[in-house]
Amino acid sequence: MAVEKTMDKIVALAKNRGFVFPGSEIYGGLANSWDYGPLGVELKNNIKKLWWKKFIQESPYNVGIDSAILMNKEVWVATGHIGGFSDPLMDCKECKTRYRADKLIEDHMTAQGVEKASADGWSNEKLKKYIDDNHIACPSCGKTNFTDIRNFNLMYKTFQGVTEDAKAEVYLRPETAQGIFVNFKSVQRTSRKKVPFGIGQIGKSFRNEITPGNFIFRIREFEQMELEFFCKPNTDLEWFDYWKEYCFNFLLNFGVNKDNLRMRNHEKEELSFYSKATCDIEYKFPFGWGELWGIADRTDYDLKKHSEHSGQDLSYLDPTTNEKYIPYVIEPSLGADRVTLAFLVDAYDEEKVEGTEEVRNVLHFHPALAPFKAAVLPLSKKLSEKALDVYSLLSKKFNIDYDEAGSIGKRYRREDEIGTPFCITVDFDTLEDETVTIRDRDTMDQIRIKIDELDEFIENKLEI
Amino acid sequence: MAVEKTMDKIVALAKNRGFVFPGSEIYGGLANSWDYGPLGVELKNNIKKLWWKKFIQESPYNVGIDSAILMNKEVWVATGHIGGFSDPLMDCKECKTRYRADKLIEDHMTAQGVEKASADGWSNEKLKKYIDDNHIACPSCGKTNFTDIRNFNLMYKTFQGVTEDAKAEVYLRPETAQGIFVNFKSVQRTSRKKVPFGIGQIGKSFRNEITPGNFIFRIREFEQMELEFFCKPNTDLEWFDYWKEYCFNFLLNFGVNKDNLRMRNHEKEELSFYSKATCDIEYKFPFGWGELWGIADRTDYDLKKHSEHSGQDLSYLDPTTNEKYIPYVIEPSLGADRVTLAFLVDAYDEEKVEGTEEVRNVLHFHPALAPFKAAVLPLSKKLSEKALDVYSLLSKKFNIDYDEAGSIGKRYRREDEIGTPFCITVDFDTLEDETVTIRDRDTMDQIRIKIDELDEFIENKLEI
Repeated sequence: MAVEKTMDKIVALAKNRGFVFPGSEIYGGLANSWDYGPLGVELKNNIKKLWWKKFIQESPYNVGIDSAILMNKEVWVATGHIGGFSDPLMDCKECKTRYRADKLIEDHMTAQGVEKASADGWSNEKLKKYIDDNHIACPSCGKTNFTDIRNFNLMYKTFQGVTEDAKAEVYLRPETAQGIFVNFKSVQRTSRKKVPFGIGQIGKSFRNEITPGNFIFRIREFEQMELEFFCKPNTDLEWFDYWKEYCFNFLLNFGVNKDNLRMRNHEKEELSFYSKATCDIEYKFPFGWGELWGIADRTDYDLKKHSEHSGQDLSYLDPTTNEKYIPYVIEPSLGADRVTLAFLVDAYDEEKVEGTEEVRNVLHFHPALAPFKAAVLPLSKKLSEKALDVYSLLSKKFNIDYDEAGSIGKRYRREDEIGTPFCITVDFDTLEDETVTIRDRDTMDQIRIKIDELDEFIENKLEI
Repeated sequence: MAVEKTMDKIVALAKNRGFVFPGSEIYGGLANSWDYGPLGVELKNNIKKLWWKKFIQESPYNVGIDSAILMNKEVWVATGHIGGFSDPLMDCKECKTRYRADKLIEDHMTAQGVEKASADGWSNEKLKKYIDDNHIACPSCGKTNFTDIRNFNLMYKTFQGVTEDAKAEVYLRPETAQGIFVNFKSVQRTSRKKVPFGIGQIGKSFRNEITPGNFIFRIREFEQMELEFFCKPNTDLEWFDYWKEYCFNFLLNFGVNKDNLRMRNHEKEELSFYSKATCDIEYKFPFGWGELWGIADRTDYDLKKHSEHSGQDLSYLDPTTNEKYIPYVIEPSLGADRVTLAFLVDAYDEEKVEGTEEVRNVLHFHPALAPFKAAVLPLSKKLSEKALDVYSLLSKKFNIDYDEAGSIGKRYRREDEIGTPFCITVDFDTLEDETVTIRDRDTMDQIRIKIDELDEFIENKLEI
């Protein structure tokens, strides 16, 4: 029997077990802001660490950086963000509800049965015409009396220094990518990397979206894991394919259900004007397919723009062929919050326990992702001392839970529900022979092993 | 011969080797913003990971969270940040230079030979009077014609939503601590922790300082590692001592020179009005003693304020004694950028190489902090394949450098200068017997070991 995974169930679990809380909750929240609780921060940190391991540490091509969120305003002039990074908004004149015109059209298309509903990159005129021609009505009041479409910039503006004059205007970055591009030369020079090579970073970005939603899928303050991979012009499409595969396999390695993943290549008319090719890796969320990872061939657009606007030479001189060129760029860009949600959804299960009427909730996380790698559970409070020894031993290497409250069955269920792959039970035999029982979350099988073998046992399960 | 460690040397090394670059540099920078390069991000990540390991993972008391940077404005009303988190500024009427009144006084005091120069917490009247009484002149033009002192709020203000009206005003958090306090109840409930317990988090904070400076010591966009430790009233001073020692030992464990560290207990008049006791762990930077870590007994101030302002009950019910109380809080708050700078400065050395005229630059990082744990160096380009095998093997576990360019002596010096603790040389014997030479950065001693022993050799050196 397939379990119905609803967003309500996921959000409730996340809140009740300490994965994700509504932000500023005691003050009634702040629209679409979320805080990661004790389990959520471990899950998300594991994802970030594993991304870094696979994309930076293990890659002979790539290095990392960590650039500031606040950047010189000219960065966003050069990229066109100040001029063009905006949403097309309009209001219903009758009931005053505000809409994103493109989303309204896409919802209409989907309702009409259009499979790939997309109004991405349409001009305001085209959007307006489609709405008029199709007599799209306000979903709130049913009238068809909209204002014109205006563009609202999505960047958060703030002021640096002690006066609020225009000179001190700065923006919260809407993407981490530009922090990489402006450092391209410094990184290349100091790391002595030769093209092809990549620069990756993990960090917060901010977009003042009018329609955030779906829990942590689309949030205004979000975290990105971006790689900008610099290659020789005309080798870009090969590298595009390389990184597409690499990213897709990254997800499969964690055991993500293949049926819930797909690659969607952008149609020509859907491509950003600077992109030669773009592919989205999408996940099938309870609310539908959603983009996790965008892999884009950005050509030499960004470096060229920065070179022109800053007056700096951002070209690369090949030391063997003496050719000078502005590298092409492949960008795999992953949303840390979205992929956290995808892992949560994918891991969620409700299972009937064989031979009983009981249903257990389980998160079948890959052990490398699980917030706790193991839980140490003394069978009796008299065994606390020994159990705490085991806890201390293991917590030097892993994040370990400790629980001595309630029946052992109840404690197993609690650990199942938060995805702890192994439960280590300390019993009275432990005092005699230094062995413990280790229970597998997924099979519920139990084996007896020595305490000094636990470290290696767990370590082996974490490999990815 | 003691090496003169100047900030100029540290900043130059940081820039030339890829630890820290000026932010937005190709656009002429953004005042006091810095980007971490490939080596800097690894160093800082190591520090953050080790803090998390010692303060969260290994601690049976503490759990972590990761709360949003943008919070409901009411948070900052409750804490008094909107009303009172400000710098006392004044301008010279003659030359228009702007000053922080307290800093001007402290500089004056220091010049007069006052040992603990501090105007912390003085009222504007007291500041003004001191300046007048002591005839303090403008350091820029020498005149004594200042404006009155006004308070400038240090929080970055921005706007959420698509209109810039007051309703949508939000602030970038000036400290991570409040994200912990507002989640106190949710974390306690879901983690089922009993007092005493702590909640820690690592994250960016923002303060619109008028006088940032000293490289990454005081920056406007900075990263904090904060723990809020909740305990029973009247046990707070014991826990205050406990965390003071714990923090101090954290630094000593990395081999930080004890002469460069001191604990400075705040005098009564220096304490924040809500604090019962505060201690700064200070490091002796090239520019003088500077605060790394503030450990403060914040009493029940924060939870009480949030409870009053939000109307939520933030007290704790002791399940065994049935006592109900608002916990007291001990806060050890560490600046990630400052401690990164302290580790850089402390590790820096220039050493005359015995029996030669050569001077080598070395960063004597503890191996756990070093950006690269080892460098793989083939003695000849003919050995690249074998050397890359060793690189692949080790890079599954550690961040490893690979370098085949230049003489082996030159490569050793490059690794010394960036603090790589071990250089692994692959030579022609390696092809025969699967052994390599491993050179110690500090002693420059070399030993021969088997490739399959490298993993354990390095792992053992990382323990902390």
